[in-house]
Amino acid sequence: MRFLHTADWHIGRKLYGYDLAKEQEHDFAQITKIALEKKVDAIVIAGDLYDRALPNEDSVNRLNKMIVELNLKLKKPILAISGNHDSAARLNTGREWFKATQYFLNTSIEEAMTPVEFSDTQFFLLPYFQIFQARNFFADESLTDLTVAMKKIIKKMKENFAANKKHVLVAHFFAAGSTKTDSETKIEVGGLNAVPLDLLTDFDYVALGHLHDVNALHDERIKYSGSLAKFSVSEAETTKGVWIVDTEPFHSDFVAIKPLNDIVLLQDRYEELISPSVYNEVDNEDFVAITLTDKAVIPNVMNNLREFYPKIISLSRENQIVDLPKNEDIVLELDPMRLLENFFEDMTGEKITEQQKKWASNSLERVIGGEEE
Amino acid sequence: MRFLHTADWHIGRKLYGYDLAKEQEHDFAQITKIALEKKVDAIVIAGDLYDRALPNEDSVNRLNKMIVELNLKLKKPILAISGNHDSAARLNTGREWFKATQYFLNTSIEEAMTPVEFSDTQFFLLPYFQIFQARNFFADESLTDLTVAMKKIIKKMKENFAANKKHVLVAHFFAAGSTKTDSETKIEVGGLNAVPLDLLTDFDYVALGHLHDVNALHDERIKYSGSLAKFSVSEAETTKGVWIVDTEPFHSDFVAIKPLNDIVLLQDRYEELISPSVYNEVDNEDFVAITLTDKAVIPNVMNNLREFYPKIISLSRENQIVDLPKNEDIVLELDPMRLLENFFEDMTGEKITEQQKKWASNSLERVIGGEEE
Repeated sequence: MRFLHTADWHIGRKLYGYDLAKEQEHDFAQITKIALEKKVDAIVIAGDLYDRALPNEDSVNRLNKMIVELNLKLKKPILAISGNHDSAARLNTGREWFKATQYFLNTSIEEAMTPVEFSDTQFFLLPYFQIFQARNFFADESLTDLTVAMKKIIKKMKENFAANKKHVLVAHFFAAGSTKTDSETKIEVGGLNAVPLDLLTDFDYVALGHLHDVNALHDERIKYSGSLAKFSVSEAETTKGVWIVDTEPFHSDFVAIKPLNDIVLLQDRYEELISPSVYNEVDNEDFVAITLTDKAVIPNVMNNLREFYPKIISLSRENQIVDLPKNEDIVLELDPMRLLENFFEDMTGEKITEQQKKWASNSLERVIGGEEE
Repeated sequence: MRFLHTADWHIGRKLYGYDLAKEQEHDFAQITKIALEKKVDAIVIAGDLYDRALPNEDSVNRLNKMIVELNLKLKKPILAISGNHDSAARLNTGREWFKATQYFLNTSIEEAMTPVEFSDTQFFLLPYFQIFQARNFFADESLTDLTVAMKKIIKKMKENFAANKKHVLVAHFFAAGSTKTDSETKIEVGGLNAVPLDLLTDFDYVALGHLHDVNALHDERIKYSGSLAKFSVSEAETTKGVWIVDTEPFHSDFVAIKPLNDIVLLQDRYEELISPSVYNEVDNEDFVAITLTDKAVIPNVMNNLREFYPKIISLSRENQIVDLPKNEDIVLELDPMRLLENFFEDMTGEKITEQQKKWASNSLERVIGGEEE
């Protein structure tokens, strides 16, 4: 069979204050298009459907609409789990009814033990869980380690493996490193919360959610799909998309998704950034992250840049040291009033008056003194 | 056909801080028992399933379990609407799947226009709505009056009336009064937010939610079921229950539900309340609302009474005037320090010291002066 592997939709997420509703709807439209073109037999969503446990009503409406579209209109089976951003209890609403149309949604470890069966493949849908939930499930108070818990979970899943079928695990965790004993490898594991990769080799494919970059892991059979949209400046140069996976013979393809509005990184001097040859190249709707290479103070820089780049999501300086007069103490040694005086002069071009100094000094004392009276 | 009419479950509600989960589960068990004994063909829930738009996870789990029980285990069709306490968007999750097992849940005016059909009865499920939603639905900006909106809604519903069937409206609003023109009747309407009863006579039965007392309205065909549990001291002496309604020939019966822990009203002198002959008559698990008939100050009265009545939900005095010395100014004219001195003396039996007076006076000044320094 062939399925589409996606994860980390984070419906309701904002990008530095900007609503991503249109972005996410655009990405979703591409997913449905890919699902139809590639004629997939099912769609796997590996957790974090919502961005938060208490999504607002608009987010609820939008996710509900997407699931109705995929499952009821396009008649695609859905294999989904709750992630750490979802509320298992809330997401679980309606679960018992969803099965009737092959929308399989798991929110507890217990549910993960019964595979969802297709003609040639079994899917084990393991939601994000906390270690206390594994303790409760196994009625084993000694269970405090994620690796041990995952070993027990996989052992139990394997009891239900059908020999003539392929086995796919859908899960939402940080997978990295190995249980191998040499000390160098152990360092690589990445802490208590990582599931070692060699635990997962019993499956023909592991469809993961949690990490937002498809390149977070390079393994033929264990993959993150990455998030649907770019959620931070650090993701600016990554490619978003979904995996199309054939179980027999095994094959996987990454199909890229084009963002509606991309994140653009600009690094330049202020004077360049406000010249038409630069700003005309940037779409007004794109999110812009600017690194200024200037060293001098630029008055009102954010507001001025916004005239040319309406959606600035970050502004930083390549060189954080400001250009102080050579004979001046270095910035960290100046007292707050001296810093303020310098700043005032830089901004206004005028010397601060004695009256202004008094106001500022009183305010500073209140802030620094800070004691409740 | 025969159906059970309930409403205002308010899952998640607390009674003066006490959790009502067990109470509500007990009431729900009785509903299922009545539904089975009376062999009803459907269960009507006329809104306010949850107590709030953002129910906590425990409430979500509990309501989900109840609906699974009624609809999937007992195979009873459910006819439900959202009330003013529910979030229509959240409650709507899964709606498209629920129909398959005859769980009909409406959260918008539009959905209410298509009746749910049984062999001999049509149900019109009209959720709670705000007037702007009626404006949007009818694309009529002039619509600002609930009575006018309801007239239009009912007119539109009637276009879908099947002549050979009975017609039931399920709704969640304040129904009272009449549109009749004499001024006396108009006063009775109860303000802008009431739906006049004579608008509703086209229906064979109107199953209402919103008011918590079954006796809020006395009409043969227009009824509130009242809430499932008692939610305030004012409901102490009301009876909770559900309506069992036959549509042909028309018949309705109120079937009472026995609370797990009732609200008990006690009105007596303190000395009586702490005597075994009185407190032994009250179940430790019952919620107790006490009215003291004493006039004198009783030190530490709440804590003392709690030793005999662990679940006190209200404590008031029949006579609010405290027993001040005859030659004293009346209470409202005393300044705060004088009141405090009297109170201190009543409580401790000692005169306040000069040092204590100073502390109290400083504190009072800070509270009353209240200005930020």
